[in-house]
Amino acid sequence: MIPRYSRPDMVAIWSPETKFRIWYEIEAHACDAMADLGVIPRENAEAVWKAKDVEFDVARIDEIEAVTKHDVIAFLTHLAEHVGSEEARFVHQGMTSSDVLDTCLNVQLVRAADILLTGVDKLLAALKKRAYENKDTVRVGRSHGIHAEPTTMGLTFARFYAEMDRNKNRLEKARWEIATGAISGAVGTFANIDPAVEEHVCEKLGLRPEPISTQVIPRDRHAMFFATLGVIASSIENIAIEIRHMQRTEVLEGAEFFSMGQKGSSAMPHKKNPVLTENLTGLARLVRMAVIPAMENVALWHERDISHSSVERGIGPDATITLDFALHRLAGVVEKMLIFPENMLANMNKFPGLVMSQRVLLALTQAGVSREDAYAMVQRNALKVWEDRVDFREMLLADDDVVKALGKDAINEKFDMGYHTKHVDTIFRRVFGD
Amino acid sequence: MIPRYSRPDMVAIWSPETKFRIWYEIEAHACDAMADLGVIPRENAEAVWKAKDVEFDVARIDEIEAVTKHDVIAFLTHLAEHVGSEEARFVHQGMTSSDVLDTCLNVQLVRAADILLTGVDKLLAALKKRAYENKDTVRVGRSHGIHAEPTTMGLTFARFYAEMDRNKNRLEKARWEIATGAISGAVGTFANIDPAVEEHVCEKLGLRPEPISTQVIPRDRHAMFFATLGVIASSIENIAIEIRHMQRTEVLEGAEFFSMGQKGSSAMPHKKNPVLTENLTGLARLVRMAVIPAMENVALWHERDISHSSVERGIGPDATITLDFALHRLAGVVEKMLIFPENMLANMNKFPGLVMSQRVLLALTQAGVSREDAYAMVQRNALKVWEDRVDFREMLLADDDVVKALGKDAINEKFDMGYHTKHVDTIFRRVFGD
Amino acid sequence: MIPRYSRPDMVAIWSPETKFRIWYEIEAHACDAMADLGVIPRENAEAVWKAKDVEFDVARIDEIEAVTKHDVIAFLTHLAEHVGSEEARFVHQGMTSSDVLDTCLNVQLVRAADILLTGVDKLLAALKKRAYENKDTVRVGRSHGIHAEPTTMGLTFARFYAEMDRNKNRLEKARWEIATGAISGAVGTFANIDPAVEEHVCEKLGLRPEPISTQVIPRDRHAMFFATLGVIASSIENIAIEIRHMQRTEVLEGAEFFSMGQKGSSAMPHKKNPVLTENLTGLARLVRMAVIPAMENVALWHERDISHSSVERGIGPDATITLDFALHRLAGVVEKMLIFPENMLANMNKFPGLVMSQRVLLALTQAGVSREDAYAMVQRNALKVWEDRVDFREMLLADDDVVKALGKDAINEKFDMGYHTKHVDTIFRRVFGD
Amino acid sequence: MIPRYSRPDMVAIWSPETKFRIWYEIEAHACDAMADLGVIPRENAEAVWKAKDVEFDVARIDEIEAVTKHDVIAFLTHLAEHVGSEEARFVHQGMTSSDVLDTCLNVQLVRAADILLTGVDKLLAALKKRAYENKDTVRVGRSHGIHAEPTTMGLTFARFYAEMDRNKNRLEKARWEIATGAISGAVGTFANIDPAVEEHVCEKLGLRPEPISTQVIPRDRHAMFFATLGVIASSIENIAIEIRHMQRTEVLEGAEFFSMGQKGSSAMPHKKNPVLTENLTGLARLVRMAVIPAMENVALWHERDISHSSVERGIGPDATITLDFALHRLAGVVEKMLIFPENMLANMNKFPGLVMSQRVLLALTQAGVSREDAYAMVQRNALKVWEDRVDFREMLLADDDVVKALGKDAINEKFDMGYHTKHVDTIFRRVFGD
Repeated sequence: MIPRYSRPDMVAIWSPETKFRIWYEIEAHACDAMADLGVIPRENAEAVWKAKDVEFDVARIDEIEAVTKHDVIAFLTHLAEHVGSEEARFVHQGMTSSDVLDTCLNVQLVRAADILLTGVDKLLAALKKRAYENKDTVRVGRSHGIHAEPTTMGLTFARFYAEMDRNKNRLEKARWEIATGAISGAVGTFANIDPAVEEHVCEKLGLRPEPISTQVIPRDRHAMFFATLGVIASSIENIAIEIRHMQRTEVLEGAEFFSMGQKGSSAMPHKKNPVLTENLTGLARLVRMAVIPAMENVALWHERDISHSSVERGIGPDATITLDFALHRLAGVVEKMLIFPENMLANMNKFPGLVMSQRVLLALTQAGVSREDAYAMVQRNALKVWEDRVDFREMLLADDDVVKALGKDAINEKFDMGYHTKHVDTIFRRVFGD
Repeated sequence: MIPRYSRPDMVAIWSPETKFRIWYEIEAHACDAMADLGVIPRENAEAVWKAKDVEFDVARIDEIEAVTKHDVIAFLTHLAEHVGSEEARFVHQGMTSSDVLDTCLNVQLVRAADILLTGVDKLLAALKKRAYENKDTVRVGRSHGIHAEPTTMGLTFARFYAEMDRNKNRLEKARWEIATGAISGAVGTFANIDPAVEEHVCEKLGLRPEPISTQVIPRDRHAMFFATLGVIASSIENIAIEIRHMQRTEVLEGAEFFSMGQKGSSAMPHKKNPVLTENLTGLARLVRMAVIPAMENVALWHERDISHSSVERGIGPDATITLDFALHRLAGVVEKMLIFPENMLANMNKFPGLVMSQRVLLALTQAGVSREDAYAMVQRNALKVWEDRVDFREMLLADDDVVKALGKDAINEKFDMGYHTKHVDTIFRRVFGD
Repeated sequence: MIPRYSRPDMVAIWSPETKFRIWYEIEAHACDAMADLGVIPRENAEAVWKAKDVEFDVARIDEIEAVTKHDVIAFLTHLAEHVGSEEARFVHQGMTSSDVLDTCLNVQLVRAADILLTGVDKLLAALKKRAYENKDTVRVGRSHGIHAEPTTMGLTFARFYAEMDRNKNRLEKARWEIATGAISGAVGTFANIDPAVEEHVCEKLGLRPEPISTQVIPRDRHAMFFATLGVIASSIENIAIEIRHMQRTEVLEGAEFFSMGQKGSSAMPHKKNPVLTENLTGLARLVRMAVIPAMENVALWHERDISHSSVERGIGPDATITLDFALHRLAGVVEKMLIFPENMLANMNKFPGLVMSQRVLLALTQAGVSREDAYAMVQRNALKVWEDRVDFREMLLADDDVVKALGKDAINEKFDMGYHTKHVDTIFRRVFGD
Repeated sequence: MIPRYSRPDMVAIWSPETKFRIWYEIEAHACDAMADLGVIPRENAEAVWKAKDVEFDVARIDEIEAVTKHDVIAFLTHLAEHVGSEEARFVHQGMTSSDVLDTCLNVQLVRAADILLTGVDKLLAALKKRAYENKDTVRVGRSHGIHAEPTTMGLTFARFYAEMDRNKNRLEKARWEIATGAISGAVGTFANIDPAVEEHVCEKLGLRPEPISTQVIPRDRHAMFFATLGVIASSIENIAIEIRHMQRTEVLEGAEFFSMGQKGSSAMPHKKNPVLTENLTGLARLVRMAVIPAMENVALWHERDISHSSVERGIGPDATITLDFALHRLAGVVEKMLIFPENMLANMNKFPGLVMSQRVLLALTQAGVSREDAYAMVQRNALKVWEDRVDFREMLLADDDVVKALGKDAINEKFDMGYHTKHVDTIFRRVFGD
């Protein structure tokens, strides 16, 4: 976790305090269920709830762990200090450490997913707003970094919206995948604990019982979760790179909001650098790097080995905290970014009229010119524009073959911008509904 | 693609013949839709279907491409050789190459997903069969590679079934994700082609129209697809490693089927090596390596750059062909693998009775012994078994503290195997339904 | 291996013919060494060389393998068909298959490295040539995609040269790392074969004996090899992205060579797309994806498992063939790329004079203005240039505070381009020597 | 950084205090060099050294950064608070932030490499000690997890030594690669600062001047550095997995040292789990995940973008701290691990005598039996041992064909263990020298 790339809400999920609180709830609910089953005395179950409002003392637990070398035992020992060791004697009965650890981890991941979903929603709202604001702002579309045909700035935001909306759906699925708990004992057979305990604890914590676990919850669920975060991060990179391109000096069709108090560089005052989106590009790499280790974690030996644990201590907090931060940073960038429509027009006309070449080509074909001839006619005029920056329309009007094939009026008509934007509303309806 | 790790059905999806056939269908359906719209003459649309039963000549197309340096133009030129260049003149009108390429790729990925789903089903059937066959075959459960408590071989197969069933669900989702097509022109604005063409082509090909595309279909869809393949591969590795462990000389609780004609090693006739599952371990790595490049493909410049294309020429065939092969190889291994129940019992009794220590510990606690004292009582006897391979039950019966706490009958009762298998049917119901 | 991204020389290294040829040489040299030791009769060793000029029949070997299910035995059986089964009876004596397979793989990787080094040299030559040609061609340097200060096009090529020269050094090291062979028997103890055989075979094949092997050569060597290819691929991406940026319509400071016969797009004749460098960006991802699997291959079980083998069947050819192709493609692009110096100047002057702001800032500081005040003076004038595209020098000359601090002559002097290029020769000397 | 997987020495390298100290030294040495050149007054350079023994106030610098939004400016402002703003006015003159940041990062990575080398040395010493202790301890070698031929425990340690010694060499190379600094200004042209400053600062900090930099030091160096860490981590995984296999209940040929106070599991007192080596398996994944992002960092836009920075803020500390911890943890495990030679013998004789089958096969061939017949003779006896656990030697002595071919004395001689260990000293000499 890199403090400067973190938000407190997500950091809190991974604090020892939160972890011990969840452990406590798992143990307390398990005691209730065991009392319901008549396996332990009701009063012992109730006694555990005495610690309901306790803030567990992390330093004290660490101190105990230094002796016992076992985190769950350290916690249980500390819990007994609050509840009374006689009263606490049935806590954790028939359970194995992983029942607590794994169920807790999934609670944390579910909560992390909920926070991430909030971030996605914030980003979606920003993208939608900017899409509608710029729905009809004409901008040249580029393939290979080369001018192609006109499009609009709104369509760019709309496609990022659609992509992020798919990510929302993926994240909901990933949240659902990870929302399971297991209280099934040392090798998952429920030998020492009734399945009813698992059902009760899961219900209380908003989880589904894992249909079949070993000592641990199967790690394919986690692999899918982190893979989904990796896809979302890649979409963030996608948006970030678009903005970085927009802001480069020669393009300057948009920019991250510039606050005058900020010194963009220690030496060059005129530089307004897209540092937030560059940063997001790097953060995407950081999130994505969790994917392969999460997949390597799937193949545990027999009923479990603990190799996954250190990995998850790293990527659990790191990937969720970084992605959360990135979503909010990007939402902020999108909300406030500067848009320069006049530069869009100026760029489009760098090679005057050339973006209409495809339409002219099509018109020539439709007018009965063979594909090869049409291609040649367009190409010879396009190259003049490319080399001398003359106006493409003028060139065509001066080309006898083209005039003969299309007529002057039709040539002029090909340079109507409305031709290119006529389906923008249709696309917006597809993306945003009515 | 590694020929020895491939199956013809999946290979066929990625052949040039299949690709050109799909291209043809896209172009022909697009012509129909344009004729419906009155944009091109009906007879030209109909003429394209003259090539319906043609097997396109890949060598000829390559020859044309060598001149034109453009694959779609080469194909269209060849198509005109079949249809007649006059009749074919409206083919591809208003479309861009990517309309054809990307829609085709998604058709291929959908078909690949269908084949993969068949493989998953085959594996699921094998796992289910072996699970029921071995439902009550007692085997020691192991955490950290160390004996823990008894479980059954059937539960091992059942958990692999549950995991692979989740993968089936994920793959269905990934298939759905990728089942879109786009016929939206050079920058996705439909400037030169009506959205109705896209709708018609997609419907005919079993796809949904991509709500908003640029020149290309957005690559987050593909990233999710390949990430899903990576998760499935990781589950294959999980199963493979379990089998490899079972087969190692000291364990020998199961083995890949051994055909006597096979020489397991050029030098050691007695070796029956788990080479198929070792191979699957490697294949999992090969599939998984597609994940990060697929994610790196998401951030294309503006309305597209072509960096994704070479990546997809590699990972498209490679990841699907390898995973398909792996699923079938694993299904075969599971179907036919040898199970050695007697070795399972022998292994479990390597340290006689010791797997019951958890249960004894619990009984002591329930009988009122403090956790610490109970732990100490179990530990001192367990260590004797560990060191001298004496019988744990005998040790307990000779330990006055234990006998005092539990009584001899209760001690004996703790070694009943039925205690550990009593919930197997419950778990099977959870996994397989009724 | 993707045929269109391959060169025959590298493909040939991975052909079955080459593999069997190397196997043959290993076996024949091993027989010589065994004859030298008196372990086998000299005439049997000599008999093996009867097959010296044989082209082994791959189809026949495959046929035998279909029965024996073992590739090395199939080869030995076929070899006996040429040499005579009586004469061939000592071939492979005391060896294990991996002695042949692993030593062969390293021979292939060494040869692959040699070809890659040739490609690196070709690229280095092209970069050096273009560096000197453009040594003094002034171009604006950019950080964050934003104009910073002047540099020269030659420095850009020079830094790519320096980077690729480091890669050459790394590749030589990787070649050295992988240049080992092992003929050490089933578990690496030389129980059945004398170390002298290994020494002899390695010497003949240009390898060093692996100091300690198991059944296999340790895979950390291969991990390092493929990691090195991944770094080289990343440098290729680095150069490719620079060229892609140069070619984008708004920048147009350079371009991939454009052959007029090539149709850059099926629809837009005026587009000259940087498709080769975009392709290289993708190829870099393909090479890089070999790195993690190669690292996962290191941890083999005990004296070997065969999980690495399928991985290497994939990444061995794929990574080397793709990187080889990429090096040659990039060398070709660099050799022939178009450079547009006049566009470089035009771009630099998009915001006239602004690239000199750093120098002015420094001058103000040196003249005794506090850092904060100097920053403010430069910033207020820079922003006018940014917004109104007026000339920075004019603005400064009209700013009383600046004139007061520096004087008019000094202000004018700050716009001398030679100030920025004065150390170019120094840097060239550092990079290229004298 | 995960606190529980960290050692203070390495953590200290990445503290803000260390960072600011290095920044300070860079600035102070740069001032000296500028004074030597006569560019700034000597007394100003000397004044900077007034802060020589200052511990910079991180909280204060953070406070300033909150206003300036720029870390280097914040530091310089704070430095001026110590030195005096008049005296400090020439600090950082002509430099750009990256001159400080990048040179500092490389100082940190060099120091990290030094600490890692110490860890490697500690591990090497432990491996060497255990290798010699167990040089002649016979153990069965295993391929595919299946018994092959005898080897010794010492050879296992010796090969890990050789592998880790290669890693030491790689790490020294990586350290050398990263030991460069750059003080070259905004785009690397030295426009505002003389190359002599760079030379002086680098010499003082133990670095070489980067031959050609842009605003930043080229990131292929860092990619190589982290790739090297990934290879080392993979070797750690390799050793860890061997130990995990040794410790599994059925094998038990070795074990992590067991301290009686440690509770291996909250429930199962007899379990001695290889949790340290399992942990190391996970830590290896964590280190390895830095490799791809480091490679993705290479392709920066033009003279730099800042996408690499957030990645390095993560992987810089994380990968070095984790690897450092892992090296020391593994060294501790190796130093103290328990070795059970008697279990090695018991395991080897699980199928009595079968490990000698390769030798018998060879003897038969040498005695003139055809390869196929010899194979069949060995196989039929081996399978009896496999199935009925009878003694292989007895079976051979009762097989007329075998006795006829070899004679009884020769058969007996094949079961001499010395045959397998005769080259152990040779191998040790290769690995450890004399």
